[in-house]
Amino acid sequence: MKQELEHLKSLLAEISDLEHVNALLNWDMQTYMPPGGAEERALQSATISRLAHSKFTRDEVGEALEALLPQLDSLDPDSDAACLIRKVHRDYQKARKVPSDWVAEFSRETSLAHQVWEQARQESDFNRFAPNLQRIVELRRQFAAFFAPYDHVYDPLLDEFEPGMKTAQVKAVFEALRPRQVELIKAITSSPHQVDNKVLHQPFDEQKQWAFGEEVIKKFGYDFNRGRQDKAVHPFTTSFGLGDVRITTRVDPNFLSSALFGTLHEAGHAMYEQGFSPTLKRTPLADGASLAIHESQSRLWENLVGRSRAFWIAFFPRLQQLFPSQLGQVDLETFYRAINKVEPSLIRVESDEATYNLHIMLRFEIELAMVEGSVEVQDLPQLWNQKIEEYLGLTPPDDRQGVLQDVHWSSGYIGYFATYALGNLIASMLWEKIETDIPDLERQIERAQFGELLQWLRDKVHCHGAKFEPLDLVRRVTGRELDPLPYLRYLERKFGEIYRL
Amino acid sequence: MKQELEHLKSLLAEISDLEHVNALLNWDMQTYMPPGGAEERALQSATISRLAHSKFTRDEVGEALEALLPQLDSLDPDSDAACLIRKVHRDYQKARKVPSDWVAEFSRETSLAHQVWEQARQESDFNRFAPNLQRIVELRRQFAAFFAPYDHVYDPLLDEFEPGMKTAQVKAVFEALRPRQVELIKAITSSPHQVDNKVLHQPFDEQKQWAFGEEVIKKFGYDFNRGRQDKAVHPFTTSFGLGDVRITTRVDPNFLSSALFGTLHEAGHAMYEQGFSPTLKRTPLADGASLAIHESQSRLWENLVGRSRAFWIAFFPRLQQLFPSQLGQVDLETFYRAINKVEPSLIRVESDEATYNLHIMLRFEIELAMVEGSVEVQDLPQLWNQKIEEYLGLTPPDDRQGVLQDVHWSSGYIGYFATYALGNLIASMLWEKIETDIPDLERQIERAQFGELLQWLRDKVHCHGAKFEPLDLVRRVTGRELDPLPYLRYLERKFGEIYRL
Repeated sequence: MKQELEHLKSLLAEISDLEHVNALLNWDMQTYMPPGGAEERALQSATISRLAHSKFTRDEVGEALEALLPQLDSLDPDSDAACLIRKVHRDYQKARKVPSDWVAEFSRETSLAHQVWEQARQESDFNRFAPNLQRIVELRRQFAAFFAPYDHVYDPLLDEFEPGMKTAQVKAVFEALRPRQVELIKAITSSPHQVDNKVLHQPFDEQKQWAFGEEVIKKFGYDFNRGRQDKAVHPFTTSFGLGDVRITTRVDPNFLSSALFGTLHEAGHAMYEQGFSPTLKRTPLADGASLAIHESQSRLWENLVGRSRAFWIAFFPRLQQLFPSQLGQVDLETFYRAINKVEPSLIRVESDEATYNLHIMLRFEIELAMVEGSVEVQDLPQLWNQKIEEYLGLTPPDDRQGVLQDVHWSSGYIGYFATYALGNLIASMLWEKIETDIPDLERQIERAQFGELLQWLRDKVHCHGAKFEPLDLVRRVTGRELDPLPYLRYLERKFGEIYRL
Repeated sequence: MKQELEHLKSLLAEISDLEHVNALLNWDMQTYMPPGGAEERALQSATISRLAHSKFTRDEVGEALEALLPQLDSLDPDSDAACLIRKVHRDYQKARKVPSDWVAEFSRETSLAHQVWEQARQESDFNRFAPNLQRIVELRRQFAAFFAPYDHVYDPLLDEFEPGMKTAQVKAVFEALRPRQVELIKAITSSPHQVDNKVLHQPFDEQKQWAFGEEVIKKFGYDFNRGRQDKAVHPFTTSFGLGDVRITTRVDPNFLSSALFGTLHEAGHAMYEQGFSPTLKRTPLADGASLAIHESQSRLWENLVGRSRAFWIAFFPRLQQLFPSQLGQVDLETFYRAINKVEPSLIRVESDEATYNLHIMLRFEIELAMVEGSVEVQDLPQLWNQKIEEYLGLTPPDDRQGVLQDVHWSSGYIGYFATYALGNLIASMLWEKIETDIPDLERQIERAQFGELLQWLRDKVHCHGAKFEPLDLVRRVTGRELDPLPYLRYLERKFGEIYRL
C-alpha cells in the first residue's frame, strides 16, 4: 500500500506545483505586473490551468485510486492517508463528470462575460450584461445536471465551495438568522445613541498605517519568514506552498479602517494556511476545508479579535503614539465605537459587521431563484432593489450600486456568496468554544497575547487542512451542528451595548 | 503548409508559456520570495522545467517538423517561418541527442555541486569543491560526446550559448586580443596620470540613485509599460513575454557606480527583448540570438553610451542637481575620468572596462584545458594564479578571490564565460557601423537623444530575435566577420586619452 500511496502522491504533487505556480502568476498580476504583461499572462495562466486539469483527470489518477480504495477500510479513517484517498476520490469523480467541452465553453463564456460586466457596471447598464448572465446561469444549470440526482439544483454549485453542504441547510440557517438580524438593524438605526466615526476619516500617513498593521499581525503570529504583505487594488491572500503564504492590502490615506482591518482579515486567512500540517505538503489536503471555514478564520481575527474592546486596550496607546495629532485627544471608548459604527449601505464590500450578512442573504436568495428558474434574469434589478429596501431600508440610485456591484457572477461563481455569511456564523461558533477552553482569553488579548488563541486554532482547525468536510470539522471542534445563534448572541450583545438597545 | 506551421507553433506556444512561467518563478525567488518559500519553489521550478523539456522532446514535435522540412526550400530563407523551422529543427535534434538519464544526473550533480561550492568559497577551500568540479567536467565531456564528431571537444559546449560558433574562432579572436590588451593595461598602470575616483565613493541617497537610473533608461527608451525595475542581490534581466521584460538592480549607498551602471546594463539587455518583432511572440525566436549578442546590447548602453563623455555632457548637470553636496563642486572631466578609472583587480564582477576581457580569457583558457584534459582539476588554483599574475600582475591571497569566485562552473556552465568578452567585441563592431550610419550620434547623445540609436538597434538587431545565428547576424549588420580590432581601437583611443598614453 505504501508504494501505491506514494505513487498517487507523486501524481498529486505535480498538480499541486502547477496550482501554486498559477497562484504566483495571479499574485504577480495583481501586485507588480506592468500593463503590457496582461495579454501573455492570461495565456500562460490558461496553459497552466489546462495542464493541471488534464493531469488530474487522466486515467492514471483513477487507476492509482482504484488500487487504493479497497484498502481504505484498513486505515484509521482520520489518518492523512485515508482523508487523502477519500478527498481525491471525491474530487476525481466530480471532475470526470464534467465534460471538457463544457469546461472550455464555460471558460470562454466567463472571460467574455467578465469584460462585458466591467463595461456594464461602469455604465450602470444591466441590460448590456443580462444576456451574458443568462448564458452563465444556463451553463451552471447544465453543470448541476452532470451531478443529478440531487436534492436541489443548487446543491452541486454550493458543493464547489462547501464540500458536502446542502442548500436546505443553508436556507434553514439563513431563515433563522434573517428576521433577527433585520430586527437588530432596525433597532440600531432607530437608536438615539448613534455613533460618530469621523476620527477614522482623517489623513493618516500611509507608511505608518502599513507599519501598524504589520506590527499587529506579527503579534497575532503571522509568520513573515513564510510570507509577506504587498499592495493590491483588491486585497487577497494566496499561497505558493506551506512556506510561502502571502497577503495583500490597500491603504486609504484618509480612512484608517481600510488598510488596518484589511490586513487583519487577510492575516486570518494566511495564518490558517500557514498552520496546515507539514505532512499535508504538496497534496490537495494542504488547502482550506472550504471557503466558509477560511472566512471564519479571517473574520475571527478581523472582527472578534480586531474590533473588540480588549484588543484596543492593548493597541490603542500604540496607535495614538503613531498618530498623535489625529488620535492623541481621542479616548478609547470613542475609538471603539467608531470602528464598530453600523450604517446600512448599498455596497457589500463597504458594509459593517452587523449588516454584512444581509447583503449575502439577498444574493443567496437571488441565486436560488435564478438557478431554480423562478426569476428571469431581466427582472433581477427589480428583485434586488426590492430586497435591499426590505432588509436595509435603502434604494439603489442605479444598478452599479445594486445588482451590478459584484464581480462574482460574471466570473461564473454562483454558489460562492453564502460562504461569506457562513464564515461569520462559524467564527462565532468557534469563539464560544474558545471562550470556554481559554477562560481568560479577554485578559490575554488585553495584553496583546495571542499565542494560546493561535495554538488553539492551529490544533483544532488549521492543522487538518482539507482533511474533513466543513460541517464535519465544525462538529468535531464545537460538538455542534451549524447554528446561527452564537453569531446572533454576539451581534446582539456587542451592538446592544454600543447602541444601548 | 499554413496548417502544419500553426500546429508546430501551437506546440511551441505551450512550451514558451512554461519557460516564461519558470522565469517568473525565478524572478520572484530573487526579488520578493520569503525564505520559507525556497524549498517548495525549487520543486515547482523543477516540475515546470521537466514539463517544458518533455513537451519539447516528444515525438509530436518531431512529426510536426518532418511535415514542414520538405517545404522549407519553398520559403524565403529569411522569413519568420523558415527561421523558425530551421531553429526548432536544430534545437530538437540537439535535445534528442541528450539522454534523459544524463539530464537527470547533470541536474542532480549541479544542485549538489552548487551547495558544495557555496561552502567551499566561503571557507576558501578549493579541495572541498574539486571532486564536484571533476564530475561536472566529466559530465560535460560526456555531453560533448553526444555530438561527436566535432572539430573540438569544446564546440558542443560553446554551441549551447553561441549557436554555430566554433572554439577555433573564439581562440583566434582572443589570441589576437590578449597581447594588445595586456600591453594596454601595462601602459595604463604605469602612466603617471592616474585617475582618482573618490568622488564616486561618498554617501548617495538610495532613492535618488534609483530615480536617476530610471530617468536615464526612460530616456534610452526602456518601456516601463512593458517592464519594471526591482531590487535583487545579483542583478539580472528576465522576460515573461514581449509585454513584460523586467530588470533588477542593487544600490550601494556609498558608491555611485553600482546601481547606475547596473541599471544601464540591464536596460540594454531588456531593450533588446522589448524589441523583438511581435510576430515572434510565443515562439523560440522571441529570444536573444545568443548570449554574446545579448551582452553586446547591455555593454553598448552601459559602456559605449553610459561611460562616454557625450552622455555625461547631457546628464552630469542633472546628477549634480540630485547630489549637490557630493558633486556640486566636481567638474565634468573629473567625473568622467572617475567612472572610467582602470584598476586591475582580482574579482571579475568588480573589474573595469579595460581589464574585464582578461578575466574572461583566463577562464576560457582554463575551461579549454579542463575539457581537453590537459590540466587536472586539482591543479586549477595554481594555473589560475599564474595566469592572473601574467595578465594583470596580481596574486590572489586565497582561492575565494581566485578560482572559487564565480558561480558558473558549479552550475555546470562551461562554455559560458567567453560570451561576456564576445559581447564587448560585438558591441564595438556595431558601434563603428552605427557611427557611420548616424554621423551626428555624439551630438545626439550630448542632447540626451537616443531615439535614432535605439531605432537603429531595433531595425538591425532587436527585431530579428533568434532568427539568425550570432555570427550570421553580425555579418548581416556590419558586413564583417567577428573582429577584435574595433574593440581594441575603442579601448586604445578612450584610455589613451584618459591616461595620456
